[in-house]
Amino acid sequence: MGKPGKASPLAPAVQPHLPPVAGVVLGVGESGMKYRGRPDLLLAVFEPGTSVAGVLTRSKAPSAPVDWCRTHLPNGEARALLVNAGNANAFTGKAGDKAVRATADAVAKQVGCRRGQVFLASTGVIGELLPADPIVALIDPIMSRLSGDCWGKAANAILTTDTFPKLATVTTKISGRQVTINGIAKGSGMIAPDMATMLAFVFTDAAIPADVLQHLLAASVERSFNAITVDGDTSTSDTVLAFATGAARTAAISDPADRRLRGFAKALDAVCLDLAHQVVRDGEGAQKFISIEVQGAEDDTAARRIGLVIANSPLVKTALAGGDGNWGRVVMAVGKSGEAANRDRLAISIGGVKVASRGAVDPSYDERMLIPHMKGQEIDIRVHVGVGRGRATVWTCDLTHGYISINADYRS
Amino acid sequence: MGKPGKASPLAPAVQPHLPPVAGVVLGVGESGMKYRGRPDLLLAVFEPGTSVAGVLTRSKAPSAPVDWCRTHLPNGEARALLVNAGNANAFTGKAGDKAVRATADAVAKQVGCRRGQVFLASTGVIGELLPADPIVALIDPIMSRLSGDCWGKAANAILTTDTFPKLATVTTKISGRQVTINGIAKGSGMIAPDMATMLAFVFTDAAIPADVLQHLLAASVERSFNAITVDGDTSTSDTVLAFATGAARTAAISDPADRRLRGFAKALDAVCLDLAHQVVRDGEGAQKFISIEVQGAEDDTAARRIGLVIANSPLVKTALAGGDGNWGRVVMAVGKSGEAANRDRLAISIGGVKVASRGAVDPSYDERMLIPHMKGQEIDIRVHVGVGRGRATVWTCDLTHGYISINADYRS
Repeated sequence: MGKPGKASPLAPAVQPHLPPVAGVVLGVGESGMKYRGRPDLLLAVFEPGTSVAGVLTRSKAPSAPVDWCRTHLPNGEARALLVNAGNANAFTGKAGDKAVRATADAVAKQVGCRRGQVFLASTGVIGELLPADPIVALIDPIMSRLSGDCWGKAANAILTTDTFPKLATVTTKISGRQVTINGIAKGSGMIAPDMATMLAFVFTDAAIPADVLQHLLAASVERSFNAITVDGDTSTSDTVLAFATGAARTAAISDPADRRLRGFAKALDAVCLDLAHQVVRDGEGAQKFISIEVQGAEDDTAARRIGLVIANSPLVKTALAGGDGNWGRVVMAVGKSGEAANRDRLAISIGGVKVASRGAVDPSYDERMLIPHMKGQEIDIRVHVGVGRGRATVWTCDLTHGYISINADYRS
Repeated sequence: MGKPGKASPLAPAVQPHLPPVAGVVLGVGESGMKYRGRPDLLLAVFEPGTSVAGVLTRSKAPSAPVDWCRTHLPNGEARALLVNAGNANAFTGKAGDKAVRATADAVAKQVGCRRGQVFLASTGVIGELLPADPIVALIDPIMSRLSGDCWGKAANAILTTDTFPKLATVTTKISGRQVTINGIAKGSGMIAPDMATMLAFVFTDAAIPADVLQHLLAASVERSFNAITVDGDTSTSDTVLAFATGAARTAAISDPADRRLRGFAKALDAVCLDLAHQVVRDGEGAQKFISIEVQGAEDDTAARRIGLVIANSPLVKTALAGGDGNWGRVVMAVGKSGEAANRDRLAISIGGVKVASRGAVDPSYDERMLIPHMKGQEIDIRVHVGVGRGRATVWTCDLTHGYISINADYRS
């Protein structure tokens, strides 16, 4: 696993260069546990006073580091983040918890903080014990070469089956002061809401109290990482963490709805959505990036659920892989979602071409009109289910032979 | 589509020969609507007094014939069943309802019954209008050559993408009188709209009042057709109907829990389970038949839900396709099911080999022990989730390149 292959055909043409974020320094290391010749460990160290927020997998069998983060997030304080790639430390019993404590202790000692201020994330194979020693041994050497300007290296160190690193950055202002939001992510399969097989970390120099940051992050995640799916599988390890150092010395605002935070909230949305889209673009075997906009649902939650059922349908995904605008399969998916839909008002358009309306094929529809759109790499599907005002957009990729090859051969 | 290809490698070696069922005569015809050189229409005619029960798709966008059956099932009386293959008459608006009425009327006129005593099922492409005329024109010729002894032909006439006909038969006794239960089914992408809907029809000469039949059928379906999955997609057309002619003159028993019905209930279970397994064995691209037994869940419903999440996980299905006993993916699936599970008591065995216990890899486990089992065509997975006494077994097949080829190339 994790053999670097060709980058996804949907990879962004250019990787952004991320500027430093005041109060954040980073370093990477090679544990040699799983991969040869590439860093697999990321350590980020934050200035004192950094707040943290997080959204974690809803899996009932979460990994040991997810349990750790869930325990310590309520304190809202972070001094370090440690991420390893290749071993998920999931389903590893008490030994897994022990490994988590040992690595957190090692970082806390070097950084000079409490162990609960060290946040952890692991991805990779499930069920293999994570040896703490090779990680602990790297902390000291990494600490000696931390830098604020190595975001590309950081994004690469957390990858597993990904074919390209995922980075995003936005600058915005809070009450006239410029702040930066950087984000990195990993994930290419096992991607589904709640969340995705996916790790994402967001760093800002804004001063945002932990509870406000939690509120803003949860809202952003809902519309980004929780609105993407590659294969509907939910990881034991999904983790999104946001760190706010406050080094930009913006006013600390205690109400998430405060107007002064609007720009920041939008910027956070943009970073999360950019990273989420990159995860879909790196979907295992993906050849097409698919946007599904659902309108007319009972509410926004119902709309998203319908969108995800369409997005997760193997029949829809294989049809799109074959360049076939098989809208009958979209109808099927709407039907199976269990959400209210008025069959006789259902309307579907693909790539702007109206294919179905009022519960039947549209009189104007000619299959050939879809051909140019279906040949492209970006597919747009719009569905109106005709019962209310709920709307949502979700994103996914097609299901191809590449997905089978990657996942049937994994580990072997 | 619907091109007869090679039979699934999991097809039964021998097709059973089905005996006549007193009170049932059958005939097939070629409408030429979709297929060339093969019958695509089945008409079954029942003696007066035949009771009917049914379980229909829960899709919110059901086909016109499903709506029809839902309307008329409460009357509990059937005189005929008409099934066409190649066109689902789904998402066809008012024109679809009209086609349904026209065909039901034509059959009713020929049989000499009320139109509501004619049951209908259609599978095939969604969204294409079903022309009633070619079907109506065939009713008379088919009526003139009905026979009680052409079950093989009947089973073949209802196929779409299936690679083999699905038949099952059991004889049993009710209070000493022999009765027969015959069943035929179609389906190969479990519940897939376009060409892979599942239809199953069960016929018996026992005298079973409609409400009792409904009770028994619903229970059987729960443990058979509702416990299988190929791709997790739910068709707009899924239909299971049972007809009891009463021609064997068994005592009419009005309590489904009556001891005298135990043998019959078991026989009905056996026919449904046999057909359901055949549908899985004909799963699109299937190379392996997979049984997943879940124990220790909160209740049986939770157990089945966990089983289906495992069975529908693309990551589990691709791992099995690759001959990889990747139990970490089973853990992931248990976790994402949302059902209660005790991670620290979770246990998994594959092919009788204990791979995980008490929340971690089993100390005795050696990957090589799985190799012989994983190479076979029949894979057994047992999962104990450690919280209660609920149990269920579900069946599925692996997810292979064949599935992608069949579904990405469909219609093109």
